[in-house]
Amino acid sequence: MPTASQRSQIMPSSPIRRLVPLANAAEQKGVHVHYLNIGQPDILSPQAFWEGVDQFQRTTLAYSPSPGRDDIRAAALEDYKKRGIPVKPAELVVTAGGSEATLFAFLACFDPGEEVLVLEPYYANYKSIAQEAGVGLVSIMTRIEEDFALPTVEIIASALTSKTKGILLCNPSNPTGCTFSNQHLLSIAQLAMERDLFLIVDEVYRDFNYTEVEIKSCLTVPGLEKNAVMIDSLSKRLSLCGARVGFIASHNEDVMSAAVKLSQARLSIGTLDQAGAAKALAETPPEYMDNVREEYRQRRDVLVEGLQKIPGVVCPRIDGAFYAFVQLPVDDAEEFCKWMLSSFEHNGETVLMAPGEGFYLTPGVGRNQARIAYVLETDQLKRALECIRIGLEQYPGKTLTQEPAVGVAR
Amino acid sequence: MPTASQRSQIMPSSPIRRLVPLANAAEQKGVHVHYLNIGQPDILSPQAFWEGVDQFQRTTLAYSPSPGRDDIRAAALEDYKKRGIPVKPAELVVTAGGSEATLFAFLACFDPGEEVLVLEPYYANYKSIAQEAGVGLVSIMTRIEEDFALPTVEIIASALTSKTKGILLCNPSNPTGCTFSNQHLLSIAQLAMERDLFLIVDEVYRDFNYTEVEIKSCLTVPGLEKNAVMIDSLSKRLSLCGARVGFIASHNEDVMSAAVKLSQARLSIGTLDQAGAAKALAETPPEYMDNVREEYRQRRDVLVEGLQKIPGVVCPRIDGAFYAFVQLPVDDAEEFCKWMLSSFEHNGETVLMAPGEGFYLTPGVGRNQARIAYVLETDQLKRALECIRIGLEQYPGKTLTQEPAVGVAR
Repeated sequence: MPTASQRSQIMPSSPIRRLVPLANAAEQKGVHVHYLNIGQPDILSPQAFWEGVDQFQRTTLAYSPSPGRDDIRAAALEDYKKRGIPVKPAELVVTAGGSEATLFAFLACFDPGEEVLVLEPYYANYKSIAQEAGVGLVSIMTRIEEDFALPTVEIIASALTSKTKGILLCNPSNPTGCTFSNQHLLSIAQLAMERDLFLIVDEVYRDFNYTEVEIKSCLTVPGLEKNAVMIDSLSKRLSLCGARVGFIASHNEDVMSAAVKLSQARLSIGTLDQAGAAKALAETPPEYMDNVREEYRQRRDVLVEGLQKIPGVVCPRIDGAFYAFVQLPVDDAEEFCKWMLSSFEHNGETVLMAPGEGFYLTPGVGRNQARIAYVLETDQLKRALECIRIGLEQYPGKTLTQEPAVGVAR
Repeated sequence: MPTASQRSQIMPSSPIRRLVPLANAAEQKGVHVHYLNIGQPDILSPQAFWEGVDQFQRTTLAYSPSPGRDDIRAAALEDYKKRGIPVKPAELVVTAGGSEATLFAFLACFDPGEEVLVLEPYYANYKSIAQEAGVGLVSIMTRIEEDFALPTVEIIASALTSKTKGILLCNPSNPTGCTFSNQHLLSIAQLAMERDLFLIVDEVYRDFNYTEVEIKSCLTVPGLEKNAVMIDSLSKRLSLCGARVGFIASHNEDVMSAAVKLSQARLSIGTLDQAGAAKALAETPPEYMDNVREEYRQRRDVLVEGLQKIPGVVCPRIDGAFYAFVQLPVDDAEEFCKWMLSSFEHNGETVLMAPGEGFYLTPGVGRNQARIAYVLETDQLKRALECIRIGLEQYPGKTLTQEPAVGVAR
């Protein structure tokens, strides 16, 4: 028999998704599961999305233009204009979420065997996407003891190899919640320019910023025009994860020419979703996102405060996105997460978290860490926190030697 | 500045889509364009699709399970059961159309540098998808003079190299309209088993079969369980191109394990589209497809008859799908297709066809050929044929040396 490809066999299963069958089994036993594993906001999708769907002419649901329908393209260009992010029509391709935008960026920028530099822990699917594209990852470790502080430009420069052709950042970061200061971004941009590197920035959490400083898009950095590639998505900021509408944008003509050809190779993304998303993007008032941000800020505060009260849990500072990447007083967070689903319940409830190891490139790191998405209302978050607290008390596999590093669990 | 990847720069732009800007320009001049370039049926999407959309709960449009929602999975499994195609739940992943299913098949079956055998002319995007996956194509030429007759298994066997790890067929074929006899398929299946090759069959046109012989799915061939990978889509058969719902199915566990991981790497396909497609697939009566097939049979007859009356045009026999891959009495079909859009109109109308060369791997072949999708009503098809006839009369670049081969233009 023929054997499946090596690349597909070594591809990791998603740490965000692979415990879902256990959660389903728990639910079938009647246990309520708080889903903290995935960045799926519970916020209502904008009413305008559904209006766009309803207004769609119900004849033949046809392919869209490959780089996106005119309506969603116009809405996105207008939105970027309002944000002061300069994007011309030829510099934009509409994609099936940020996921496809990331794949397009890898394929357009890198050839097989070339490398892109990432920070650990990273968004787990970067590894899968790199394997699809045959691109290597090189990484710089960031540490929970240092609030996953971003490395200096000197450290980044020293990690580059002759094969490194780009740097991929997520700002604000999934999974750490870190944000790049504008000065930090500029210094990395300077390095990218000096070394002829692509600087790909995943900006899908741009609006989930709890600091006072506005986050700069990579597309606004002077001189970086040929290096910068922006990945964006409506999934999180308009609570439209299931619509699969995202964007890749760059001032680099060759990259965008490649993105258009890549879009043609899959013909079209969902036509109805684009129609709805166009109306949602054009008509949703700024207050929608202001309210969402304020809601998430409260959730973050509830989560961080709650986690800090649990003995042995290390929760770093969180400035953006909607994840806490935490250390747990257990030997193996994946085993703990499984145990929470298969052997634990508190008042008929439990939680699903994403085990941390899959967010690292370096083997063995992050084994006692987990990503918690604070995508639930605060009262539910509090109940989920109570499950985690009591679960850790009862869990037989916890380690007593694990202590939080000084000054970290704030 | 960094340079875009080699692979993206050598990727072809779609011969099906790249003349669309010229068509748009023609429309802006007030010329009506008959779109024969793309396999976009004009048939109404099933009413049940829209009912499924309307019944969807309008709260948060969330991610779906990566391998597909339960409803569309159940509908697909039931549909395959009715067709006598054995597919178990673990053998199915729902994809963003046949395009993503093809990409998943390439990534799951082949490693970079390996090769897959295809027949020329092929569906043009196979080349782009192969380049994305870093997989080579080797090809066997089929010829318009022979109605693109499928090669014998001996010829296929002789084309295999040490790097060839699979055979990719499209049955019925886009772009040629050929169908594989069951005996032919079995002999190729036998070869695949003997040589440990994957046999990937793109079966998205299965229902567009104008012969009396039912087309066998590759998944039904005894002994081929570990070799066969089926690509399928609802785009054509339910006129849901814009919904992006397709399938990859195989009895090979490793291939499906890879497909699940690949599906996780892009999180989800469109949730609303799946809800609509599930209802459409479950509730659309067989008469819908019977009517569609009969409609397309009539269109085929009108098109073939009309093309045969145009001097110098060679139109082979067409048994399935909804394309005619024809030879035109011109030096360069791409130039002719452009001229038809930029310099020609007949009673305020013209046509957009897909130039043929992009459907070949071998350079220079197919330059005087084009793919015509007969996706319009017969009266519109007749008007489009009249445009082609008069356009060829007026076109300054036609060649007088091009004669149809004996016995072909039937």
